[in-house]
Amino acid sequence: MITRTVDLRSDTVTKPTEAMRAAMAAAVVDDDVLHHDPTALRLETEMARITGKEAAVFVPSGTMGNLISVLVHCDTRGSEVILGDNSHIHIYENGGISTIGGVHPRTVKNNQDGTMDIDLIEAAIRDPSGVLVYPTTRLICLENTHANHGGRCLSVEYVDKVGELAKRHGLKLHIDGARIFNASVALGIPVHRLVQAADSVSVCLSKGLGAPVGSVIVGSKSFIAKAKILRKTLGGGMRQVGILCAAALVAVQENVVKLEGDHKKAKILAEGLSLIKGIKVDVASVETNIIFFDIEESSKFTAEKLCKYLEEHGILVMQEGPLSIRIVLHHQISESDVQYTLSCFQHALTGVQDQNGI
Amino acid sequence: MITRTVDLRSDTVTKPTEAMRAAMAAAVVDDDVLHHDPTALRLETEMARITGKEAAVFVPSGTMGNLISVLVHCDTRGSEVILGDNSHIHIYENGGISTIGGVHPRTVKNNQDGTMDIDLIEAAIRDPSGVLVYPTTRLICLENTHANHGGRCLSVEYVDKVGELAKRHGLKLHIDGARIFNASVALGIPVHRLVQAADSVSVCLSKGLGAPVGSVIVGSKSFIAKAKILRKTLGGGMRQVGILCAAALVAVQENVVKLEGDHKKAKILAEGLSLIKGIKVDVASVETNIIFFDIEESSKFTAEKLCKYLEEHGILVMQEGPLSIRIVLHHQISESDVQYTLSCFQHALTGVQDQNGI
Amino acid sequence: MITRTVDLRSDTVTKPTEAMRAAMAAAVVDDDVLHHDPTALRLETEMARITGKEAAVFVPSGTMGNLISVLVHCDTRGSEVILGDNSHIHIYENGGISTIGGVHPRTVKNNQDGTMDIDLIEAAIRDPSGVLVYPTTRLICLENTHANHGGRCLSVEYVDKVGELAKRHGLKLHIDGARIFNASVALGIPVHRLVQAADSVSVCLSKGLGAPVGSVIVGSKSFIAKAKILRKTLGGGMRQVGILCAAALVAVQENVVKLEGDHKKAKILAEGLSLIKGIKVDVASVETNIIFFDIEESSKFTAEKLCKYLEEHGILVMQEGPLSIRIVLHHQISESDVQYTLSCFQHALTGVQDQNGI
Amino acid sequence: MITRTVDLRSDTVTKPTEAMRAAMAAAVVDDDVLHHDPTALRLETEMARITGKEAAVFVPSGTMGNLISVLVHCDTRGSEVILGDNSHIHIYENGGISTIGGVHPRTVKNNQDGTMDIDLIEAAIRDPSGVLVYPTTRLICLENTHANHGGRCLSVEYVDKVGELAKRHGLKLHIDGARIFNASVALGIPVHRLVQAADSVSVCLSKGLGAPVGSVIVGSKSFIAKAKILRKTLGGGMRQVGILCAAALVAVQENVVKLEGDHKKAKILAEGLSLIKGIKVDVASVETNIIFFDIEESSKFTAEKLCKYLEEHGILVMQEGPLSIRIVLHHQISESDVQYTLSCFQHALTGVQDQNGI
Repeated sequence: MITRTVDLRSDTVTKPTEAMRAAMAAAVVDDDVLHHDPTALRLETEMARITGKEAAVFVPSGTMGNLISVLVHCDTRGSEVILGDNSHIHIYENGGISTIGGVHPRTVKNNQDGTMDIDLIEAAIRDPSGVLVYPTTRLICLENTHANHGGRCLSVEYVDKVGELAKRHGLKLHIDGARIFNASVALGIPVHRLVQAADSVSVCLSKGLGAPVGSVIVGSKSFIAKAKILRKTLGGGMRQVGILCAAALVAVQENVVKLEGDHKKAKILAEGLSLIKGIKVDVASVETNIIFFDIEESSKFTAEKLCKYLEEHGILVMQEGPLSIRIVLHHQISESDVQYTLSCFQHALTGVQDQNGI
Repeated sequence: MITRTVDLRSDTVTKPTEAMRAAMAAAVVDDDVLHHDPTALRLETEMARITGKEAAVFVPSGTMGNLISVLVHCDTRGSEVILGDNSHIHIYENGGISTIGGVHPRTVKNNQDGTMDIDLIEAAIRDPSGVLVYPTTRLICLENTHANHGGRCLSVEYVDKVGELAKRHGLKLHIDGARIFNASVALGIPVHRLVQAADSVSVCLSKGLGAPVGSVIVGSKSFIAKAKILRKTLGGGMRQVGILCAAALVAVQENVVKLEGDHKKAKILAEGLSLIKGIKVDVASVETNIIFFDIEESSKFTAEKLCKYLEEHGILVMQEGPLSIRIVLHHQISESDVQYTLSCFQHALTGVQDQNGI
Repeated sequence: MITRTVDLRSDTVTKPTEAMRAAMAAAVVDDDVLHHDPTALRLETEMARITGKEAAVFVPSGTMGNLISVLVHCDTRGSEVILGDNSHIHIYENGGISTIGGVHPRTVKNNQDGTMDIDLIEAAIRDPSGVLVYPTTRLICLENTHANHGGRCLSVEYVDKVGELAKRHGLKLHIDGARIFNASVALGIPVHRLVQAADSVSVCLSKGLGAPVGSVIVGSKSFIAKAKILRKTLGGGMRQVGILCAAALVAVQENVVKLEGDHKKAKILAEGLSLIKGIKVDVASVETNIIFFDIEESSKFTAEKLCKYLEEHGILVMQEGPLSIRIVLHHQISESDVQYTLSCFQHALTGVQDQNGI
Repeated sequence: MITRTVDLRSDTVTKPTEAMRAAMAAAVVDDDVLHHDPTALRLETEMARITGKEAAVFVPSGTMGNLISVLVHCDTRGSEVILGDNSHIHIYENGGISTIGGVHPRTVKNNQDGTMDIDLIEAAIRDPSGVLVYPTTRLICLENTHANHGGRCLSVEYVDKVGELAKRHGLKLHIDGARIFNASVALGIPVHRLVQAADSVSVCLSKGLGAPVGSVIVGSKSFIAKAKILRKTLGGGMRQVGILCAAALVAVQENVVKLEGDHKKAKILAEGLSLIKGIKVDVASVETNIIFFDIEESSKFTAEKLCKYLEEHGILVMQEGPLSIRIVLHHQISESDVQYTLSCFQHALTGVQDQNGI
């Protein structure tokens, strides 16, 4: 019998808190397509303030946030975007920028820490004099924190340098900031400073911040005006959307402070895992709330089997490869959940049982 | 001083009821992208049942519902869709089926009653033997009720005939059923019968039914499986979407019965308008909750001026042309609001004041 | 036994003359993709001169000429083009502007004479203030002569008026001038005057002018610079293309003068047909080299049967409908061919044989 | 005073031979859009035979050949193609597969020899079970010889292995065979064997084979039927195209045997260059008619300056980077041209003059 559920698959599994539910029930709303929902307006104003940008627009998902951003910056046929070969946009968003938007991606290798070498980015920028055979580079995308690289943070110095490069070549810079608050907390740098060099940022509210639904795109007024048109075109315009924005406002107000705790729990979990025979994990690379680790080949487990074992004990994690697993911490995982999880892992891999109850 | 607001611009302006707010606050939710939110599942199951289709999927808007439907049916490059020249998809959805989906539209004239002549539809179907110069017709779209034609209903006989035509030519039939419940109530035909001939239907829950946000697409299991992929691609996949679906379930359960009242109020309002000197309105054409009417050229008013006058009295309507105005009734408009509105019109156009307080 | 072949299906069936063959064999050529083929340059310079535009570019077909033109004018996502519902671009070019270019077409009814009512064009222009739900109108397309409307000519006054309308709304005007030389000759107006209001024109050299392959697009220098990029993208950049341009130069130099004869032969043929019992043809509408006519329902022939009968006598025509046929004259049809054709028709429909040998 | 021109920029600069010019002047032609030009038919039949495929279609360029091939294999929205990060399709074709075709590219690193590691290709194939977030892999593209990797050849064993991989995963294999005849000659493997594993191949006739214009795509009958539709859509359907095909037939008949000589001249030139102080060239990597080489940093020349110097002496080469240059041999470069070129290089870099006249 499973005594509890510990859902570590993603920080998107967070459920709305009581405060969010109360806020949704009480939200003042209006038709956000016909004019502007007042609660959406409040959220958008707040997000523009936090990110230091002129304007913001709420969208149903991070995928739409990135899709709109790339398409607005690449609004002319024949555009190319430079992005990481392991970036969320390139790998996990259905290739939408091409299949929906006709934008040609040019990938640069993501380093272990989620960066791309700046000279490789520069080398990937198309020479405008070759426009007869080249698409036109218009945009560089960064991802901070980088989901596929263990939630590692891009430093403000790095982001600034890429921003300078973009500016020097007349390009735009978009940051997939699905977890930019995690980066901000981990680095101790305010969000607005961390994205200062960016022309647009998409920020998820339904990941670590725990809102039920939604992301926000921020940028200049003219960028956001275009983003709204595209949001409508894609079908992302929603009527009394203030319901969702009310919860998102609570998320921003109450949950940013919880991220530090998530990072600590991730560190504790990673350190605990590193002590278990049969697991390889680079504790130092755990900078925020994501842990990637491998099962040693000598182990009796594959990732699939281990996931199954864990699931039987109420622990949900994400298989990433034959021997590789991802864990994501969030504010609805308690320290006790972390200990319970470590116990299960230990028991599974070593047969040793401890006092955390398995 | 405005004593009240009567928002007749659209039935999308409806605000969530207390029951909806309570349902949202209490909704059981889960991550609908990773697996399935239970409340979303309940809504989708219920909508599939009501429409007599195998499966359903919740989307953030009617625009996305139509866009996904057209794109799934036209998933191959070189596809053409036949649709009304005055249809919502063609006129009011940013041309998204082409600009996002690369689908070529072939329009057929919409008659006054929202139908297209069946022989004209048939003539517009491309001869497959001419594929070297023609795109390939894959889909016919109907709209029921037809927003741009006064909310008039397509009869079940008509829809069936178009369905037979589609089948005979190996085409799919999609119904933009943003207001299919209005058609069902007005015709006295259950929704599932009215859309029996259709391969897909998009149904809005945030119009007359009054849910804050969302539409549902229904169709076969394989159609919905493809629709879910495209929903994700467009960024319409939402996490704890059960919040919105909880409200939508209330909308479906409680508000369908209110539509008949909306139609009656529309009729009363149209009849009242028809008696006011300076207004031309075809009362017989008011079959559901939408009224289109014209101001006579001899009147001192243009539509713009009249809208402004009404707004000063708290009445919001939609200008459609220099002398033409649209009004939409919904469950948050009372009979008293209707009388007040008529009084304002009368006073504006004739100077006569009546007992309804203006 | 067929004594001769009279190919009246299209003016595209014309074969290169001896002069063209000699010119091709002797053409000075170079790599037109790497820099510029000198013969291509000569042709492009000549076509720019004739049409009164700044620049020109050779393309493999009229379809590519139109596709590039529409796409260059509509280079931004979310663009709409206004064009005739019976236009070649809309009907016979695979819907390429949408399926390849993502441009949304908005059709206006083509009148019998190939025009569209100017007030209908104006009504179809999207209100820019409605950009949240509308695509953005960027282009109007005309077709002169209008292939699907019997090769009828748009007058210079009409074209100018549409040009003024376009300018007033900040739109571009493209003319599908596949047979603009026919219009010019029929109207007695130089080509450059006839297209003066247009921002771009695509002109076929392989129709009435008899070149083996190719069209030319003309417009401003910046337009043509963009057209060349798109030509390369579509795969229309050709290496030693001077071969084809050499023939096209001969076509322009030698065959424009022959068009008047084509029109006369068309008139003679139409008049002859009008005298044959069982054929309905509007002789007055035959303004250039195209004849559309109907077989009377009382006739023993369908179009299919009559085409077959004619083919057995070496005459190739184009079936357009169950009772409708298209004939196109060109410089390789002699007056004797015309008489022979008339004899065949007469014999087929009336049984009467005449001295032209059937 | 320049005594001669030695154009080594590309094998596309070859000019039609007298035999080709005679063939063009005498070509039997017809309207290839309405039915089939007999000379085009002959060429297509011959190319199908040579490549061992069912059918073939002539197109105006290699870019169109690749674009059509990728788009036919990826005819459904949401498709992804795996191709080399340095492939011609990815780098030099305007990103057309995305910007025109909406296909999402997934690149794999090209090794020095033009291959991609087979396990990297396999790793790039999307797991179909992840279709909710992944595009669908449909196609793998190879390039043989590989233009950007010094014209190196893929072995038949390698191509077969990739073919097996593709088959195992239900994918198609396309070969950009712009210079497949060079690979065939260099490897001593007939073309049909070398492309046996491929579902489609695009073959250029206007490169080493010296035809003025055109490429041919080969594949199954159903593939070619779809390719013809797309060719028409893109505007690549040409009327009396037999003119070009007549020259291409001569190219195939007469010039394949000359390729071995081109390779020898490339080897001689590369060996000669390798002896000149200041030039770094990997002679072993020169397998066909292309040479890439670098100028040593210690040299007084940059690539730009050296190109300019050579141009002043009538020698045209292609600058590839600040210190890197490409040379391509073809049948219109004589052995004397090679010696003259070497002399110029020697003189430029070392000041030493030799008997070849500079």
